Amino acid sequence: MALSVVFLVAYSWEILAGTHILLCETVINAIWILFVIDYAVSLWLAEDRWRWFTRNLFALATIALPMLRPLRLLRLLTVLHVLNRTSGMAVRGRIAVYAFGAVGMLMYVGALAVYSVERGEPGATIDGFGTALWWAFVTVTTVGYGDVSPVTFEGKLIAVALMFAGIALIGIVTATLASWIVDQVNFEAHRRETAGRK
Amino acid sequence: MALSVVFLVAYSWEILAGTHILLCETVINAIWILFVIDYAVSLWLAEDRWRWFTRNLFALATIALPMLRPLRLLRLLTVLHVLNRTSGMAVRGRIAVYAFGAVGMLMYVGALAVYSVERGEPGATIDGFGTALWWAFVTVTTVGYGDVSPVTFEGKLIAVALMFAGIALIGIVTATLASWIVDQVNFEAHRRETAGRK
Amino acid sequence: MALSVVFLVAYSWEILAGTHILLCETVINAIWILFVIDYAVSLWLAEDRWRWFTRNLFALATIALPMLRPLRLLRLLTVLHVLNRTSGMAVRGRIAVYAFGAVGMLMYVGALAVYSVERGEPGATIDGFGTALWWAFVTVTTVGYGDVSPVTFEGKLIAVALMFAGIALIGIVTATLASWIVDQVNFEAHRRETAGRK
Amino acid sequence: MALSVVFLVAYSWEILAGTHILLCETVINAIWILFVIDYAVSLWLAEDRWRWFTRNLFALATIALPMLRPLRLLRLLTVLHVLNRTSGMAVRGRIAVYAFGAVGMLMYVGALAVYSVERGEPGATIDGFGTALWWAFVTVTTVGYGDVSPVTFEGKLIAVALMFAGIALIGIVTATLASWIVDQVNFEAHRRETAGRK
Ligand SMILES: [K+]
Ligand SMILES: [K+]
Repeated sequence: MALSVVFLVAYSWEILAGTHILLCETVINAIWILFVIDYAVSLWLAEDRWRWFTRNLFALATIALPMLRPLRLLRLLTVLHVLNRTSGMAVRGRIAVYAFGAVGMLMYVGALAVYSVERGEPGATIDGFGTALWWAFVTVTTVGYGDVSPVTFEGKLIAVALMFAGIALIGIVTATLASWIVDQVNFEAHRRETAGRK
Repeated sequence: MALSVVFLVAYSWEILAGTHILLCETVINAIWILFVIDYAVSLWLAEDRWRWFTRNLFALATIALPMLRPLRLLRLLTVLHVLNRTSGMAVRGRIAVYAFGAVGMLMYVGALAVYSVERGEPGATIDGFGTALWWAFVTVTTVGYGDVSPVTFEGKLIAVALMFAGIALIGIVTATLASWIVDQVNFEAHRRETAGRK
Repeated sequence: MALSVVFLVAYSWEILAGTHILLCETVINAIWILFVIDYAVSLWLAEDRWRWFTRNLFALATIALPMLRPLRLLRLLTVLHVLNRTSGMAVRGRIAVYAFGAVGMLMYVGALAVYSVERGEPGATIDGFGTALWWAFVTVTTVGYGDVSPVTFEGKLIAVALMFAGIALIGIVTATLASWIVDQVNFEAHRRETAGRK
Repeated sequence: MALSVVFLVAYSWEILAGTHILLCETVINAIWILFVIDYAVSLWLAEDRWRWFTRNLFALATIALPMLRPLRLLRLLTVLHVLNRTSGMAVRGRIAVYAFGAVGMLMYVGALAVYSVERGEPGATIDGFGTALWWAFVTVTTVGYGDVSPVTFEGKLIAVALMFAGIALIGIVTATLASWIVDQVNFEAHRRETAGRK
């Protein structure tokens, strides 16, 4: 229920994280406290508290571990989910929107996270948020020029996540197209059959 | 209706853009004026002018912004569309022709555009139209050797477009093959069934 | 039948192989003797010994040739197979679990093997087990940054195996998604049809 | 009809081309003469000579142009075709065998051709047939490390051919798997339905 608040604050955090001014630290801490409150209230309001707890271990982890915190932003996908449900789009369109939304968000968060862990490392080739975003695109599409690549352990972990996201994206694009082509072929066959009967 | 004229002029522009002689500037400007006239006449002749305007915002953008102008050439795909409709090819063949036509054109335009923005940049590895075309092939097939890669912002933007075009191409190739294999398997199953009944 | 023993010992070997202490040599030799005994007993207990022999040439090869020995670990997949059968998962889920299990194990074994053959080679970029694992991820997802790549013949052989495993993984991910999307579209079409009849 | 002769001689040529001893030149010239005779005899024996000529322009090109000559080896695929027809394999198996046979042969011929054009070039990274074969694998699987890549125009042309072969291979692997998974899911659904009726 506190989702819309979380959404707005998290979004502003994203923007601020991009600029990395002094204010940022304060805001991030404030958001973290909000997350903790959100988690505690949700747990309190849950009908079966133990069940809610076991099902939200991931949420607990994102609160406790600083490195996983960017993953919290993936909850923005719920907004996408709501938007999708209200629209009258067909199944394939919904899947495509969802996939591109998720991959786009993961790329943004991944680029942000990689930039923050690689910054200041000796021998790092990712020297700005723009470069990090370029690297995210190169990785997700599995092109992998290799002109920039992460050198830290955390950076490589994020890279692996983006690579698998890329494979999933290729899979979804292909599968959606396959489903569409099969329909087209069937439609054409049906049309010709009907025309032949006349 | 002024499509055939646009086609011819645009095509010659392509050739000229490849050589980059002094004449080129004049020709490009002339074509730009032709595009503006084409746009104005089309708008004038449209039944519902406001509807035509909102549906052709992309065309307006390609006229107004110099960077997007190469995208105008994608209208050549309409010629492919006409050629495709007249032929008696099956659905799969038409989709394949369309996909390879679109990707081929995008590669040509992309290589041209990358060459024009990277030329003269310090540290650029794309040092000629041949290299740019080689880079376009390496990017579209998602191989990404990394021996040449764009260094400018515009170049990277074009690269991202080509990467996604590559993913789409892989998707279409795979999907078309999947549809074909499913048909082959069904045909074989049907043939065996019929043979078994005899 | 001696599978559970093989499993445990092989697993501990894996861990030890990761640390490469002096003890390792002894353990590997002990496991090798266990493998030989396992092979001999299996052959002795087989109903039709000749048939068992011809069907297990691969097992003989993994015992005789030192380089192929890591492949023995692929027998751990049988455990996955048993786990899979007992669970009530659907076909697609089972295929996905199997594929990811197999690729994960191949990556682990591949990284281990590459590390052992590249270690100490002049000009080798794979300088630790962590780097080898990172290389395995980069190769399997067909991203291929090229920041690290094998320089020895055996390393390149393992790389080729991982590349084809990657293509197979992409294929399975895509195919599973395609099957799922086709079902979703059919389900939606059926639901709309039923809703229309009411 | 002279196919078996062509096959044997071409095969030995392959082996010899790998070693590049002085004898090689003589053998290649001898095979070339054989190809010309084969072409002339086939043309003479054809029922409708003009039709045969127009349908075999590709064969004429492979005889006339020295660069295209390796493509002649693709005729070995006919052997694969004959082998395939006699076996009782299912459709999917036949397609997979054909695809891997074709890609494998293209890789071999491609590596050979790249090696021959890159040899002695300044700045070339492909410095042996082994490296060329490694490069062919890296390119076909679209991994593209970029540790070795062609520098000559002909080499890049061969690379592009291999890249598209790689995309086709990925497509065929995925499509075959998709067809198989769809069948498995249908079979499982049918089995459950039958079990439910009892
Ligand atoms: K690469
Ligand atoms: K790649």
